[in-house]
Amino acid sequence: MKNLINSQDLTKIELEKLFVLSDKMNKRQKKYDDSLKGFVIATLFYEPSTRTRLSFESAIQKLGAGLISTENAKESGSAKKGETLEDTIKIIQGYADMIILRHFDNDSSDRALKVASVPIINAGAGNGEHPPQGLLDIYTIRQYKKEINNTSIAIIGDLKNGRTVHSLIKLLCLYENITFYGFSVKGLELPKNYIEYIESHNAKYFICKDFSEIPSDVNFIYQTRIQTERLENKNFSIEDIILNKERFSRFSENTYIMHPLPRTNEISTDLDDDKRSIYFKQAHNGIPTKMALIYSIIKDFYKNKKHF
Amino acid sequence: MKNLINSQDLTKIELEKLFVLSDKMNKRQKKYDDSLKGFVIATLFYEPSTRTRLSFESAIQKLGAGLISTENAKESGSAKKGETLEDTIKIIQGYADMIILRHFDNDSSDRALKVASVPIINAGAGNGEHPPQGLLDIYTIRQYKKEINNTSIAIIGDLKNGRTVHSLIKLLCLYENITFYGFSVKGLELPKNYIEYIESHNAKYFICKDFSEIPSDVNFIYQTRIQTERLENKNFSIEDIILNKERFSRFSENTYIMHPLPRTNEISTDLDDDKRSIYFKQAHNGIPTKMALIYSIIKDFYKNKKHF
Amino acid sequence: MKNLINSQDLTKIELEKLFVLSDKMNKRQKKYDDSLKGFVIATLFYEPSTRTRLSFESAIQKLGAGLISTENAKESGSAKKGETLEDTIKIIQGYADMIILRHFDNDSSDRALKVASVPIINAGAGNGEHPPQGLLDIYTIRQYKKEINNTSIAIIGDLKNGRTVHSLIKLLCLYENITFYGFSVKGLELPKNYIEYIESHNAKYFICKDFSEIPSDVNFIYQTRIQTERLENKNFSIEDIILNKERFSRFSENTYIMHPLPRTNEISTDLDDDKRSIYFKQAHNGIPTKMALIYSIIKDFYKNKKHF
Repeated sequence: MKNLINSQDLTKIELEKLFVLSDKMNKRQKKYDDSLKGFVIATLFYEPSTRTRLSFESAIQKLGAGLISTENAKESGSAKKGETLEDTIKIIQGYADMIILRHFDNDSSDRALKVASVPIINAGAGNGEHPPQGLLDIYTIRQYKKEINNTSIAIIGDLKNGRTVHSLIKLLCLYENITFYGFSVKGLELPKNYIEYIESHNAKYFICKDFSEIPSDVNFIYQTRIQTERLENKNFSIEDIILNKERFSRFSENTYIMHPLPRTNEISTDLDDDKRSIYFKQAHNGIPTKMALIYSIIKDFYKNKKHF
Repeated sequence: MKNLINSQDLTKIELEKLFVLSDKMNKRQKKYDDSLKGFVIATLFYEPSTRTRLSFESAIQKLGAGLISTENAKESGSAKKGETLEDTIKIIQGYADMIILRHFDNDSSDRALKVASVPIINAGAGNGEHPPQGLLDIYTIRQYKKEINNTSIAIIGDLKNGRTVHSLIKLLCLYENITFYGFSVKGLELPKNYIEYIESHNAKYFICKDFSEIPSDVNFIYQTRIQTERLENKNFSIEDIILNKERFSRFSENTYIMHPLPRTNEISTDLDDDKRSIYFKQAHNGIPTKMALIYSIIKDFYKNKKHF
Repeated sequence: MKNLINSQDLTKIELEKLFVLSDKMNKRQKKYDDSLKGFVIATLFYEPSTRTRLSFESAIQKLGAGLISTENAKESGSAKKGETLEDTIKIIQGYADMIILRHFDNDSSDRALKVASVPIINAGAGNGEHPPQGLLDIYTIRQYKKEINNTSIAIIGDLKNGRTVHSLIKLLCLYENITFYGFSVKGLELPKNYIEYIESHNAKYFICKDFSEIPSDVNFIYQTRIQTERLENKNFSIEDIILNKERFSRFSENTYIMHPLPRTNEISTDLDDDKRSIYFKQAHNGIPTKMALIYSIIKDFYKNKKHF
């Protein structure tokens, strides 16, 4: 594994290795503390981010690597002077040993990969993919349910633009007997190609028109934010998809609530204290999974070079 | 001491301990150089800042800790997507072992503290408080006058919105026989609750209508900037409160000029070379006092945990 | 060498020393890896930058120093509250052991130097100078042509506002028998004082009205971007100065193409794969030359102080 651009690049074996390494990172095993000393890693973000950027930057430093960071590449950098993404990548790879990219174009990471001589991690591309989020999501599923095979999960909200949902689907489809229940706001349904992806991987997809249609013993409810910043028509009610204490009351003691965050109000704060609300713990899993991801890629990429 | 939210949280004994430790930090004692290695600290700033953010970030690195930084959390991060401060704190505490927060709401740090599982330092909250500034201010007073008891100080300018003045008052009131002379622009007088605070702590507050009403042997003149960014009506003259060479000429050889900075023109640059102008040295005291503050809190908070 | 403000501050001997050290940095000699540990260096940028800021920040970390960074000092910091550059410098020098400054005023670094107690590096000042770029440019020339004396170079595009061209001219004029061919867009000719500078240093300057007037055996073509952000009248065609495969076909096998980058379209991407296109390698030389620059200045400045 020398890059992470699309979720389907990951095999089940690679995923399992990453999870085992993530467990070690979670325990803060001393041997990894300065393991990437001497490397410099760039975070290059063309879209706003708190969670993804800061968790990557924390992971980078926990591994002892140096960090160069662009919080707002669209406005503060060469993009404003008309530089193409390809040129920017070709330059920054002279300054850093790995580039972590968030960009507003769906094909940005693929384009970066074509010109890159250092590893690229896609940390969010338009309304396409966000594989590191998929990674931490599956890691969280594994943490709470032990087994990833035989998982049922309700995906709710903006299934059209939510790139975390798209990455999650692709990664889950690596496992056996996965069932998705999709419940979206009207007009934000899961795109056809993702439904086909699910079905061609022997997983199941059921469309739900209401919370009541989601089985009460579903393993996970994966709620998402309506990405109003990507919508042209903002005139719709999200009332129906809000998950609150009352609506959650019919679900099982083993149904966990996930959310890639940030949330607006689609999960009511009255659920925050419920032990089945694991969305903050899910976010915190960004650290060990990103440490494992960065470490694995750097180690693989530079194994025969003087660096490592 | 496990957080620093409001100045009144600090006792006189804690202050003294911080000052002794600040003296050590000032001498760059080797033992502190990598003392926080392995920790990661977040600076989360929702309002513009050069001084406070950069001095915290310098202090963090001088102690050997890792740093994750948000220069403009209001625009570049999840706040723009509608995330509450509480949610942001709950997430970032999974990435960092301490959060240093600047926010435009007066109760922001109190709100953060309620949900936080890591230490919080209030680095400026609306027009409320700014305790780390108070800390460096008192440290500067101690440096130049040796004794903090029996201090007289003229506070000038925007006494209503100047959060550094508010923190300074609360910290000085921990000491004996303190006298304040307040000289403000019309409409920006010291709020009544602060006058009551002073009087209930056996300190004195005198209102001055002119520079000439400030005793010429006052120990310190603490000038402040008119915070035009917080004012609705900007039509007033600050001419009267400008301190220049001429107006300063009647003051004693032992009267020092302080300012939390940045200044616009309320201290004339013709005073910069006067040895009693200590505002830049005051700013530089941000480093040892912040090093002491961070070190003390981290050490106290994590003393029984695996980290330390 | 205790600062780098203007290119003419550098002597030929200093340049040569920097190049020899840059060669060592390029090889990542272990002895420099943590050589600046304990120092903190500030990057203070009032104008957008990707290349310069990130390459300085990478260099800083490769040397083991701490970093405090301002990506957008104009908007996110004290400048917005009305603080002068001089005051900002006087404050930050209490937080950092060196300041790397980019500012929109031509005299900014000179003004900073006047008040500074720590070394200042001018990383771009208005449409004036950009000495670190000049440094990496000459280092690149030395790398590809071995000898800097007897160099011919065509400078193309915006010769009026292009500060990298200005720094390059001054540094090249330290050497023997240098010939410049200037080919600019109408209205963006090389200012008279630079032509006089060239001629007073026994170098030659020829004005070209077309690509065809540039000798086909010129050693280097130094293309530059039209800095539309600095122009009032943007109505002109850059068509004539675009360098593409066809126009480049008449040049020698030993004519190299340089560009300070970012480019818009003044070098056609069909030239990117030509081995004589060295603009990305040129950009990458920012790392070893900046490492050498920072290391030399810090070492010289702090040699008798406790730091080093």
